[in-house]
Formats: sequence, structure tokens, C-alpha cells
Amino acid sequence: MIKKLVDGIVKKNAPIVVGLDPTLELIPEHIKKAAFEKKGETLKGAALAVWRFNRAIVDSVYDLVPAVKPQIAMYEQFGLPGLKAYKKTVDYCREKGLLVIGDVKRGDIGSTSKAYATAHLGKIRVGTSEIPVFDEDFATVNPYLGSDGVKPFIDVCRENDRGIFVLVKTSNPSSGEFQDRKTDEGTIFEEVAGKVVEWGSECMDGEFSNVGAVVGATYPEQGKLLREIMKKNFILVPGYGAQGGKGEDIKYFFDKEGLGAIVNSSRGIIGAWQKDPYKDRFKEEEFAEASRQAVLDMKADINGALGK
Amino acid sequence: MIKKLVDGIVKKNAPIVVGLDPTLELIPEHIKKAAFEKKGETLKGAALAVWRFNRAIVDSVYDLVPAVKPQIAMYEQFGLPGLKAYKKTVDYCREKGLLVIGDVKRGDIGSTSKAYATAHLGKIRVGTSEIPVFDEDFATVNPYLGSDGVKPFIDVCRENDRGIFVLVKTSNPSSGEFQDRKTDEGTIFEEVAGKVVEWGSECMDGEFSNVGAVVGATYPEQGKLLREIMKKNFILVPGYGAQGGKGEDIKYFFDKEGLGAIVNSSRGIIGAWQKDPYKDRFKEEEFAEASRQAVLDMKADINGALGK
Repeated sequence: MIKKLVDGIVKKNAPIVVGLDPTLELIPEHIKKAAFEKKGETLKGAALAVWRFNRAIVDSVYDLVPAVKPQIAMYEQFGLPGLKAYKKTVDYCREKGLLVIGDVKRGDIGSTSKAYATAHLGKIRVGTSEIPVFDEDFATVNPYLGSDGVKPFIDVCRENDRGIFVLVKTSNPSSGEFQDRKTDEGTIFEEVAGKVVEWGSECMDGEFSNVGAVVGATYPEQGKLLREIMKKNFILVPGYGAQGGKGEDIKYFFDKEGLGAIVNSSRGIIGAWQKDPYKDRFKEEEFAEASRQAVLDMKADINGALGK
Repeated sequence: MIKKLVDGIVKKNAPIVVGLDPTLELIPEHIKKAAFEKKGETLKGAALAVWRFNRAIVDSVYDLVPAVKPQIAMYEQFGLPGLKAYKKTVDYCREKGLLVIGDVKRGDIGSTSKAYATAHLGKIRVGTSEIPVFDEDFATVNPYLGSDGVKPFIDVCRENDRGIFVLVKTSNPSSGEFQDRKTDEGTIFEEVAGKVVEWGSECMDGEFSNVGAVVGATYPEQGKLLREIMKKNFILVPGYGAQGGKGEDIKYFFDKEGLGAIVNSSRGIIGAWQKDPYKDRFKEEEFAEASRQAVLDMKADINGALGK
């Protein structure tokens, strides 16, 4: 599966993933108004607004980027209707030829991780049927429980040609609290990175492994170090844009060929219509065009930093 | 909310939570057959079987225990119908007077954790409405992202009188891989425990805090140590039964009053009908009675170890 992602990045010349993390604050009034008129100020109304918003953004950017990353929490907060909108979004993006990284950050004891892996990357057996469930291409995984919380995901990846990104060094301000703690072998995040290398070696797909890592754009020094440790593991880079990361900060997350990483922006793209420099150039109704422009600008910023 | 849990434990003399973690393998044939006849060998068919199985178990044990702990992964693996069965189970258990610990192990950057906290313990604002979503009483939380991944849960707990259990030392075999790593202040799990104390001090409810911890029954030495570190934090103890933990192993997870901990068993109770010593005493159709007997035996084992 990682080979498909690399091919998509090369073909579109865009190591960029659009984060589909819709909150109601990011959705233009006219979409919310129409959805609430149809379904009321209910979970169903919110979910309808989310779905229509996502569809317009996807229609506007799908030719520019290889992948999207819906953050499931933003759908889970609208309950069952929200999760239905999540599934609809996943399916729609795959129809549009986009790869889908389910940002689910699941991870548990072995038997439970197996159920999560099945839910997001595999097929569940019901009687004699085998049924794909949420059916994303990649999922993000939390490593706090150690190898037996991660390996069920790897097994399911191998059986279904899917991939995972394991949280190594996250983009948030307090990520160092436990991840940066020093042990006699370095830091916790370096130890997790070492395991990512080990887990990933069982799961190669071309030049890279189907087991990748999450490393935040907000920690450029650590990104540089981790690129060296995890030579064959793709890095998913959140934290660009709204969280503060810029193209120059993340050039060392890439290898010499300018591959090995893919950068996510969520609010910076889907909420572009509310922000400088787009809010004066685009009307609220033109939110999807503003998103397209934000993708183009991000692409120029990152490819510029990579000298492409 | 933790005070309600303590009251329930005292009233029923049972520091026990029943883990509602249904896989199809644990559900008797006659239930699956009827569900598949009605809905086919589909996600809906599986979800119907799960719901009927849960209802029968809950009807059989609700007078014995203060709480249940559905593991959401076991529902998520059946997609949207599975999550509908999860929600139905949560609502049914609360109607029966049980407290519900949503074993969701969520945790992310601040804005995302806020969405998860809202989804499970809070109310979402849609227009002028405020709507409860999955509406559990407690949720489990993964601490890998540090304070700003946990604090949004605490805020939502304070606003809605709910509680969380933060993963400190998990019950699985490889939990030590990162959790036991030594730093200059002890181990990672002790550092997380220190934070649980700090976070919990802002969120007291009677003798205990609404911020508790997860510590596996499979690590009795660490449990004893953690009881000392986290004097005001309730401990949710998984790993009893199917994972190997016994009453004698966990007596030091409790304080001198025999409080401060609640022990979970999932497969050991809901799958009792398949296991010794129950499988010869109960027919497959009597699975719910077997579960009841397993709860009574667990209660005797734990209260015996506590000298009650």
C-alpha cells in the first residue's frame, strides 16, 4: 500500500495529505443552515453539514493530492450519524482515487487491537461472509501498549495490503512529557522509532515499509534525527499550518530523493476561507476554492523547501 | 461520578465490573442463527446477535455488580451497525442502574481529545441544541500524548460529572516495552502515575478523584507500588480471569478499607458457558446463568482475598 502512496505523491508532485477534520465552526453558514433545515439542529443535521462540506472540499482538491486523512474524532463527536458521514467520506474519497489515512490512533491489548485492525483495515467474518468494515487504506496506531498492541495491525496490513503510521513523536505542545523522557537507550520516542524499524522490516512494499511513523512538523530537530533512524519507514507529518509548522521546518523529514514523508494540513486547508490570506480573496460560498488555493500554496512552500 | 461508583461497590459488596466485549466466538449458536436468519450474515446480523447476547447477560447480572465496561473495539469491528449496538448497550445498562465505563482508550492532540471527550462524556453543541452523544459515565484514556491530550477529558468530566481512567500499566504481556522503561525519575508508568495524581487533584469527588488509572491484574508488584503513589485515584484493574489474574494477585490494588479499585473480567464472565468449571454445569442456552455464576465466583474470590 505504501508503494501506491509513493506513486501518488510522485505523480501529483505533492507530498501532501488533506486533513478532513470538520468541526461545525469550520463549516460555512449556508451549508449548516440548509442541513439544519432538512434534519434539524440534531446529530443528523450536523452530520449532513459535515458530509456536504467534505464532498465540496474533496471535489475541489482531489486532483492535486494523493491522499486525505479524516480524523475520526471529529465524526465520533456527532455519534452514529457522524460516523456514518465518516464512512461516506472514506468511500467517496476512495471513489475519487484518493488514498485514505484513517486517523484513528487506536491501540489496545492484542485481542482488542485485532478488532480495531479488522474494523479499519481488514474484513470481519460473519458466518460464511467476509465483510470490509470502515475500509481505510492506512490507520494511525498508538504504541503505548507495546508490540502486542501493534502486531495485530501489522498482520492485518499484510493480509490486506494496507499500512499503518505509529505515533512516534506527536505534534502537540506536551508531547515531550513522556515521549522525550530519557532512558539508557535514548528517549522513549527513539525507542518507539527503533521498534517501528523492527516491525516495519516484516512488512516491506517496494522501497518503504507499510509500517510508517507519525512525527510532528513542530519538532524539526527530532524529525531530522528520526529520518536517520527510520530509513525505510514513511513519515506522516501533522502540525503543518494551523499548528505552526512550515516547509523549511520539515525538509529534513524527507530523504535525499525528496521522498519518505507526507505532510498533513487540516484546518489550514479546510478552514482556509476563514483565514489570511484567503478570507479577503474568497467569499464564504467559495470555501472550496479557498481550500484549493491553500493546497496549491502549501505545495509551493514544501516543494520550494525541497528544492523541487 | 466516582462517588457513585464507590457507593455502588459498597451497596452490592462487589468491586467488580463486567466487561461486555462480545466477539461472535463467544455468542451461542442459537443467538447467531436467529440473528442471521433475520438480518443475514451481515454487519447488521452480527450486531443483532451482539445486542441480544449483551441484553441477556445484563439481565442476568445487573443486580450483582455496580458497573459494566463495554470495549468499543468489539463493536467497531462490526461497523456502523456494531456501534449502534454499542450505543444501545450503553443506554440499556444505564436504564438498569449500571454505571458504564466506555473502554475506548482514546487520546490525541488537544483539539481532537476535546472531540473524543465530547463524544463519550459530554454534550455536543449543534446550533442552539446541546446533545449528549455516546453518553458513558467513564472513559479510558491513553496518555502517550501527555497533558494536553488528557486535560480536555478532565474539563469535560468537570462540566458533566463524569470520570476517566488513564492507562498507567496495562495488562498485556508487552506492556513493559515502553511503560517499564527506566528514567531518572523511576519508570514511565510511575511518571504517568505522578501525572494522574496531579491531574486528579483538580477533579475530586468525595474520597477519590474522577481521574483514575488502569493497572493490569497481571502485574501485582506494580499494582502495589501504584496504590501507594496514587492514594486518591481509583484503579480499574483489567486482566483478571482469561488473562491470568487472580484475587490474591490484586489485593494490594485496594486500600486498607478494601476500596480504591474495581476489577474487570470480560471473557471470563461473558464466555463462562464455554469454559471450565461452567461448561459441564450449564447448557449453551443457559449462557447467561453461567455468566451469573462466574460473577458470584469472582466476587467470592476477590472478597475472600480482601478478607471480606
